[in-house]
Amino acid sequence: MIIELKDNIDAEQATRLAEVARAFLIHDGASHVLINSSSEKELPRELEPHTEQFFVFADDMQLASRKYRSQTRGVRFGNTVIGGDSKNTVVIAGPCSVESEAQIRQSSNLLRELGIGTLRAGCYKPRTSPYSFQGMGLDGLKLLGKMRDEFGLSIITEVRDASQVDEVIEHTDIIQIGAKAMYDQGILRKCGKAKQPVLLKRGFGSTLQEFVQAAEFILSGGNQNVMLCERGIRTFETKTRFTLDLCGVAYLKEHTNLPVILDPSHAMGYAYGVADLARACTAMGVDGLLIEVHPTPACAKSDASQQLDHRQFKDLMATLHPIAAAVGRKIV
Amino acid sequence: MIIELKDNIDAEQATRLAEVARAFLIHDGASHVLINSSSEKELPRELEPHTEQFFVFADDMQLASRKYRSQTRGVRFGNTVIGGDSKNTVVIAGPCSVESEAQIRQSSNLLRELGIGTLRAGCYKPRTSPYSFQGMGLDGLKLLGKMRDEFGLSIITEVRDASQVDEVIEHTDIIQIGAKAMYDQGILRKCGKAKQPVLLKRGFGSTLQEFVQAAEFILSGGNQNVMLCERGIRTFETKTRFTLDLCGVAYLKEHTNLPVILDPSHAMGYAYGVADLARACTAMGVDGLLIEVHPTPACAKSDASQQLDHRQFKDLMATLHPIAAAVGRKIV
Amino acid sequence: MIIELKDNIDAEQATRLAEVARAFLIHDGASHVLINSSSEKELPRELEPHTEQFFVFADDMQLASRKYRSQTRGVRFGNTVIGGDSKNTVVIAGPCSVESEAQIRQSSNLLRELGIGTLRAGCYKPRTSPYSFQGMGLDGLKLLGKMRDEFGLSIITEVRDASQVDEVIEHTDIIQIGAKAMYDQGILRKCGKAKQPVLLKRGFGSTLQEFVQAAEFILSGGNQNVMLCERGIRTFETKTRFTLDLCGVAYLKEHTNLPVILDPSHAMGYAYGVADLARACTAMGVDGLLIEVHPTPACAKSDASQQLDHRQFKDLMATLHPIAAAVGRKIV
Amino acid sequence: MIIELKDNIDAEQATRLAEVARAFLIHDGASHVLINSSSEKELPRELEPHTEQFFVFADDMQLASRKYRSQTRGVRFGNTVIGGDSKNTVVIAGPCSVESEAQIRQSSNLLRELGIGTLRAGCYKPRTSPYSFQGMGLDGLKLLGKMRDEFGLSIITEVRDASQVDEVIEHTDIIQIGAKAMYDQGILRKCGKAKQPVLLKRGFGSTLQEFVQAAEFILSGGNQNVMLCERGIRTFETKTRFTLDLCGVAYLKEHTNLPVILDPSHAMGYAYGVADLARACTAMGVDGLLIEVHPTPACAKSDASQQLDHRQFKDLMATLHPIAAAVGRKIV
Repeated sequence: MIIELKDNIDAEQATRLAEVARAFLIHDGASHVLINSSSEKELPRELEPHTEQFFVFADDMQLASRKYRSQTRGVRFGNTVIGGDSKNTVVIAGPCSVESEAQIRQSSNLLRELGIGTLRAGCYKPRTSPYSFQGMGLDGLKLLGKMRDEFGLSIITEVRDASQVDEVIEHTDIIQIGAKAMYDQGILRKCGKAKQPVLLKRGFGSTLQEFVQAAEFILSGGNQNVMLCERGIRTFETKTRFTLDLCGVAYLKEHTNLPVILDPSHAMGYAYGVADLARACTAMGVDGLLIEVHPTPACAKSDASQQLDHRQFKDLMATLHPIAAAVGRKIV
Repeated sequence: MIIELKDNIDAEQATRLAEVARAFLIHDGASHVLINSSSEKELPRELEPHTEQFFVFADDMQLASRKYRSQTRGVRFGNTVIGGDSKNTVVIAGPCSVESEAQIRQSSNLLRELGIGTLRAGCYKPRTSPYSFQGMGLDGLKLLGKMRDEFGLSIITEVRDASQVDEVIEHTDIIQIGAKAMYDQGILRKCGKAKQPVLLKRGFGSTLQEFVQAAEFILSGGNQNVMLCERGIRTFETKTRFTLDLCGVAYLKEHTNLPVILDPSHAMGYAYGVADLARACTAMGVDGLLIEVHPTPACAKSDASQQLDHRQFKDLMATLHPIAAAVGRKIV
Repeated sequence: MIIELKDNIDAEQATRLAEVARAFLIHDGASHVLINSSSEKELPRELEPHTEQFFVFADDMQLASRKYRSQTRGVRFGNTVIGGDSKNTVVIAGPCSVESEAQIRQSSNLLRELGIGTLRAGCYKPRTSPYSFQGMGLDGLKLLGKMRDEFGLSIITEVRDASQVDEVIEHTDIIQIGAKAMYDQGILRKCGKAKQPVLLKRGFGSTLQEFVQAAEFILSGGNQNVMLCERGIRTFETKTRFTLDLCGVAYLKEHTNLPVILDPSHAMGYAYGVADLARACTAMGVDGLLIEVHPTPACAKSDASQQLDHRQFKDLMATLHPIAAAVGRKIV
Repeated sequence: MIIELKDNIDAEQATRLAEVARAFLIHDGASHVLINSSSEKELPRELEPHTEQFFVFADDMQLASRKYRSQTRGVRFGNTVIGGDSKNTVVIAGPCSVESEAQIRQSSNLLRELGIGTLRAGCYKPRTSPYSFQGMGLDGLKLLGKMRDEFGLSIITEVRDASQVDEVIEHTDIIQIGAKAMYDQGILRKCGKAKQPVLLKRGFGSTLQEFVQAAEFILSGGNQNVMLCERGIRTFETKTRFTLDLCGVAYLKEHTNLPVILDPSHAMGYAYGVADLARACTAMGVDGLLIEVHPTPACAKSDASQQLDHRQFKDLMATLHPIAAAVGRKIV
């Protein structure tokens, strides 16, 4: 249940009412808001005089639902806004991993050349083997911070565990929670206390309901700047790395109020299919794309097969603009 | 292995050489062609003097592969061509099932109004329960034939078992092999002997390799007019009926020479997501779309939840044209 | 809904009442029984005076449900009975395919030596590629018939399409419907009209509900001798060929009244795991096992990797008896 | 590659050689051992004189593989040993969550009555919704510690993030890494530095290879006391909560040297199937079972549907002993 308190309720009173309802207390928009389990269907008697309106739900997709907020929430980073009244589709691009200053500078130059404002690159890589390249860590983060200063780019990078959230906030603009960390409550709760936008990737073995409920951990913690990212689910088909779930994206657009970003690179796993998928996603009118591009993909220290080279990426960008226009959107 | 014989080889000689190679014999384009297992890697000595060129393969995706034919094969039905040099994306639309003459006439009128030339509707429904509506059978087929005559439409309908292939050929233009029949060799072999175009749907539990190999049954039987149709695979996600595998479509476009048709209606299972998915498919540059539309979806005898109504379908069509144009294609 | 008519109702009256209820009419045990869709929840007024008892259901698993018949149905073939009051676990063994008389005779001798009464072997192989060995067909069937006569074995073999049902009935004792044909209504309906026991394999992409509903096609056609066979479903895991769904078996045992047979060979795909899985299935108290064993697996024309050799099979059999005894069952 | 150094190599030299080989350094059994990526196939020249033997691998399943150690590793907790020369199958039982002292004492009494030495119960619950019961946390841990002292039980409980590892070590005997945390490198690395046994559950969306590689994080960190736990994978089938992957268990037994524990409760999700599955697992000769049992399942704060009551659990235990005996094992 979500309970919007009247605006004359102050923080102290709100805290006391939250205890009565055994609920999370957040400030969403103009008023204090309480959220407890969707199994609660009736407003506690004691709250009645202080309640502006309340919402009951069939399941624990509550703050994220269109039933609670019919418009997609707006999220801002740097000079970019997605969701809300905007008709923007943001392209977030860059290499899988930060590998060196020279490499990440080449990526930054590419983005500047194409008028793209948001750079992605990993520093803490959640590899499935302990014997693989694990990322540059804090050194990589500092390089990203440097690019931010030099090029005026917004930066997004992934946290692998909760202890890294603070330093990622310090050096970047968007916290990425990777697919393998989607259930990590340490990260989710820490991000709930932050103000920075969070891009939450769907676990490749996670249902849409679990995905949205993971977002509820962040939202109920108080941070309303959450973006959902579909990046492919694991199915029986192994000719491609994962299966991009666009039916699921249609579901998310219909039932949730969070911006939706698509990652065709990880879904496909092979550069040859990324452009076609990126075009498909754009035509669906999603709020953003996350695309891996590397100066020399064959030499990449991780995900070499799926990264576009600069030429392929430029060709792709040229085709996205007219598709976005055809569905009333703008690439930013 | 595929062996293209020299053009001076006549049918009788070709038959004898096929026996030597224990191979299927077909006539593909200008010459006789032999095909045997991909485990054969060396040209039989006796065939050497009669061979124009030959191809070896890693697996049994042979006649359907881009390695054998680099261009997408053209397929013609009625006045429509897809694949080949065309840049056409065909829209095939109509109700899930033929239910009455009045109903199918309404559908035919809708198509005429929108300039769409190909009508789909089922007569033999492969339901999973014996207690559900099983389709109008031959009576439905005859109604489809009547619409073909009256409206000049091309007709596609599904066969449920091999015994129906002949009557479907008599009354329609394209034989549809449904997802549940993808492994049915009785149907596949019978279609291999036919001349009519065949739309082969991917089984929802079938790998891409099995899908293409099912097409090889038809191709190696002698019928080169095969179209592949992706209609959603079964995954752990149940908020949507199936999961449309666009990564798989990217694979098929890269590796096979057959036109690819997409069916967003069955994948989604809910009308609300069909338009977004249809736009996504169009932006991928596929050769066609199969969309369910019904005069009054709520009263449909099968698949009521996923059929668009006429208003929704018209709105969708209006948005497909500019997307197709943006990727250099034309809706037909 | 299932409606059991009073026993004074004769066949002619029953036929008329079936038309009233738009229901299938069968004779199950002592009385005429009508079955129509589970969406029917109320007994038609006109049937009331003629109805002994009736059952309503949440879904179309009706004749197969424990709600209708609380005891597992007994099925008899040759001298063997499973289900019913028996506590038998039948072992059905033999090679993947009939390859020659010498080979199938070796298999028959092995079974005789071990006191096993039921031989399995395929004649019509539903291969996924047209370029693989497709089975010996009718010649194979005749060899199986010969072994039946010589060794007194019960024989089970697979039909690939409906046209083969009659000849399989002529030469064997149990009709096997393979996983790829589970939805084939041509076969299902034909088996519904037969009297012979039918072993129905679960499609590897099929839900439990679809599986049981496929059995309903046979049961509602009038043949009550149906056995369900779990043989592995397709999942994201590819280190093994399929994933044997023993949770699903627990579901079938709880909710359906049909004997359950397990096929660990196809599930595993590798000989090394078959014995462990066969022991697991036996400890679950299932009604039977289907195990592939070949005189020289490495030379097998199909499924070479998963067939046990005779030595391995004998060792396995020696371990099954005490496990069966521990759960109050007997291997037959 | 795994490199076993000669036993005259001291710790300081080993550290230097590890740097040369860019390898992890552990002490496994009698000698220093280096491990680096499986992509390394040749022994570095400089290590040759100091190397006793070395092993190359096709993939990053190295320390866990039977190629490296042909016998299953022994793991000891309390008075119990599994793996190694033992033929023990340990039963680990208890409620899903610690809910109160009265409840956990009832569970402890049940175990004592049945001669079971290892108690399971969760304190930090990794729920998928923020609005569900999240566990008693440290208070629960202390209750478990109390039961350990009073009843002489070994205790296993789950960590949800790396910050909890130390307190779990303080109060219990075995660290459980849950399915949702299988990729959590924070936890994995911290457990690699511990000495306590670790039970690592397979992620429900994780391949067998990823599962074993997660164990390699712990093993390469220096902790050799790792047990693998299969608890069901996510598939398209939803009549049961998950699908217990016994084909995968056969694979793990064949290819890895780690003890394998099975959790039928979470796989099934319903109490009715747990006993049958537990019997199946026992007949496979696995090293242990993890079974949820609760004094009053209907009142449980989590996983109410899948917990056995005390009566059902006693009945189950009575049937496990003869099955274990039939496969040469002993329940402990």
